[in-house]
Parts: sequence; structure tokens; C-alpha cells
Amino acid sequence: MPEPKQDRAVRTRQAILVAAAKVFEEHGYKAATISEILASAKVTKGALYFHFASKEELAAGVLSGQDQQLIVPSHACKTQELVDTAMLHAYRLQSDPMVRAGVRLTLDQRAAGLDRTGPFLRWGEVAVGLLTTAQAQGELLPHVVPAETAEVFVGSFAGVQAMSQAVCEYQDLLGRVSALLRHILPSVVLSSVLASVDLSEQRGETLSLEACREPALA
Amino acid sequence: MPEPKQDRAVRTRQAILVAAAKVFEEHGYKAATISEILASAKVTKGALYFHFASKEELAAGVLSGQDQQLIVPSHACKTQELVDTAMLHAYRLQSDPMVRAGVRLTLDQRAAGLDRTGPFLRWGEVAVGLLTTAQAQGELLPHVVPAETAEVFVGSFAGVQAMSQAVCEYQDLLGRVSALLRHILPSVVLSSVLASVDLSEQRGETLSLEACREPALA
Repeated sequence: MPEPKQDRAVRTRQAILVAAAKVFEEHGYKAATISEILASAKVTKGALYFHFASKEELAAGVLSGQDQQLIVPSHACKTQELVDTAMLHAYRLQSDPMVRAGVRLTLDQRAAGLDRTGPFLRWGEVAVGLLTTAQAQGELLPHVVPAETAEVFVGSFAGVQAMSQAVCEYQDLLGRVSALLRHILPSVVLSSVLASVDLSEQRGETLSLEACREPALA
Repeated sequence: MPEPKQDRAVRTRQAILVAAAKVFEEHGYKAATISEILASAKVTKGALYFHFASKEELAAGVLSGQDQQLIVPSHACKTQELVDTAMLHAYRLQSDPMVRAGVRLTLDQRAAGLDRTGPFLRWGEVAVGLLTTAQAQGELLPHVVPAETAEVFVGSFAGVQAMSQAVCEYQDLLGRVSALLRHILPSVVLSSVLASVDLSEQRGETLSLEACREPALA
């Protein structure tokens, strides 16, 4: 039986994005060309332009690759869910080249003309949402402003991953993210709540394995 | 009276570094060429190679530009000195293109072959030194490990500046750094010490103006 057209389109789109991620990572946004991406993806020009009208759209696709998997299993304790979001993202940065390429593009300070604020804003929204619910549930210290804490959370995560990449290609990333959380959360979360939150370095891998066992959404 | 030779050499070296910073910032490390830097610096090829043997040495010069000015006025309270280091660096990032270029190169994740760990390590050393003295003076909470806190401090600063650059070209940088410090320091410093530390956004500018009034070192 021939493959359904829709499945093939999804696979082609993904192959193009993986190729684009590779080329952006190698040459940077500015120097990357569509013909290189074409050659690497091994698809026709028509197929590429059917999915992406421009280099900017390709980059936007790679950028959003990092946060399409933002969702972590819901947890009664929203502080734990926030921690899980960070630890799972750290684990994926270590293990998924597409997530890595998206983060690198986000921090490409020379990618003029490319809107790199998206991932920062989307991560910020996720963090604000979790912190607002955590506050409503009485998990946070009284002075906390969720919008401000969310910005600190997202910004500091971005730097800790960049430092880990620069000094050892992400080998110590999980330890660094765990240390960051241990430094920030005591200023944000009630100590009675924090005492039962799992901040261990293994958290990301555990969550990732659990996600794989979930039945796929239709 | 003709200018002493040494002064001229210092000025030429500085002109080359400023030109290199500009070219690296525009094209990135990989795409930048020495001939572009030559054209922009308006010096002879001989003068450039007298000071810098390669593109890598030029980049190393730009990278170290950001931390040659790491030194802030000594303060009895080492926590204040650590805060001052961050706030002054944030202020210089806003106001000094050379500092900005160094930081961008440090975060250029495609600059393969260029050792970008230097600034992270040097900033880390400064932070470890200040935290170790702060600990000896009894400013810190008992569980603090200076080396770990220093890494969190440097990494999170790097990300907060990158986020500020991406979303608004550094306009809100001082507020973001102040918020970061307010989130991290309560996990590190005794509250009785922190109560008298100046974390205000104006701190960097105040210190910068004070530094200008200092007599220059011979």
C-alpha cells in the first residue's frame, strides 16, 4: 500500500528542517544559503518551497523546533513542573541536535532580520503560566512577581547552557542547570514546598523516558 | 614634540582591535577576514601583523577587551564588590562597543577553533575570589560552595545579557541584571549582609563615573 500523502509531507518537512538546522549550525544564519539546505535535505526545490517560502521561514521552523516539545507531564506541584520543564529541556539539548540548533539560532546575535525573540517569549509565557498557578496554589513566597521571575528563569537558563556548551560541549549541563535551580528557587518558592521538589540531575532523562512510553496522540 | 613611539603603538593596537571588533560583530568570527579588518582599521599590513599574527589572535584580543576592565573599586563588603562587578559590566555592555563585541564572540557558538572559554574562566575566577573572601569574612550562608555559585553567577549573567540583547538591544539590561541578583543572592548571602548591599540599577553608572575621576595608573 502506498504511503499516505500526508505522512510523506510531514516526513519531507522534517527532513528539510533537519537539513536547515545542520546548515544554520555550521555556517550561521547570515551565511547559510537555501541551495546548501536543498543539497543537504535531498529534496526538490519545489518540495522545499512548498513548505518554506524563504530562508527566514526555514529559520523560524528550526527556532520553533526547540519549544514544540515544551510540554512536560502535568504535576500537582507547579514548582515541580517548572523544574521539569528546565531539566527536560536540558536533557534534550544534550540529546537532540534539532533542539540544539534552535537554541543556537536564538543566541545568534548576528542574525539580523531574523526574529529571535520568539523562543524567549514562548519560554517566558510557559514560565509565567506555571509561576502564576504556583502562586495561586500558595507555593510561592509573598513578594514574588511571576513575570519578573519568569524572565530571570529563562535568561539565566539560556546563559548556563551557553557556558556549558562553550566549556565542555554540554557534558556538565545537567549539573549546571540543577545548580542554577538550587540558587534561584529559594528566593521564589516556600521552603516547605521546595523540600519535596525533585531537583536531581536525572530528572530530565526520567521524564524523557516516561514521555516515550506515553501512547502517541492521534 | 613627536609622540613617543610606545604611545603610538598602543593607539595603533587599539585601533586594530576596534576595527576587528566591528568586523567580527558584523560577519561573525568564521566569515571575518583580515583584509576587511585591515581596510577598516586603516593601518598597514605590517603594523597589523606586528601586533597580531593571525585572525585567532585578533579575536583573542577582542575577547580579552571585555575583562581587562573587570576591576571595580575595592569594597569592605565583598558581596557589594561582586554586585558592583556585575552592574559595572552591564553598564559597559550598554555603553562600550568593544565590551559588547567581546561578549558576542564569547557566545558565538559557531566560532570553532577559537577558544571561547577564556572570558568564562576569567569571570569565574573573579567571582570565586570575591565569594571566597566573602565567605571568610562571614558574609555567606553556611552551605555555599564558592566555585559552584561563581559558575551559576557567570552563566546566568551571560544569558540575561543575551536575552536583553535579543528582545530590546540592551535597553532593559540594568533592570534584568538587578532582578537576577535579587533572585540569586538570597540563596548565597546572609540576609543581614544583603540588607545593606546596593542592588540598584544606577550602580553601574555611578561606578563608571567614579572610575573616570580616578587618577590614571602609571
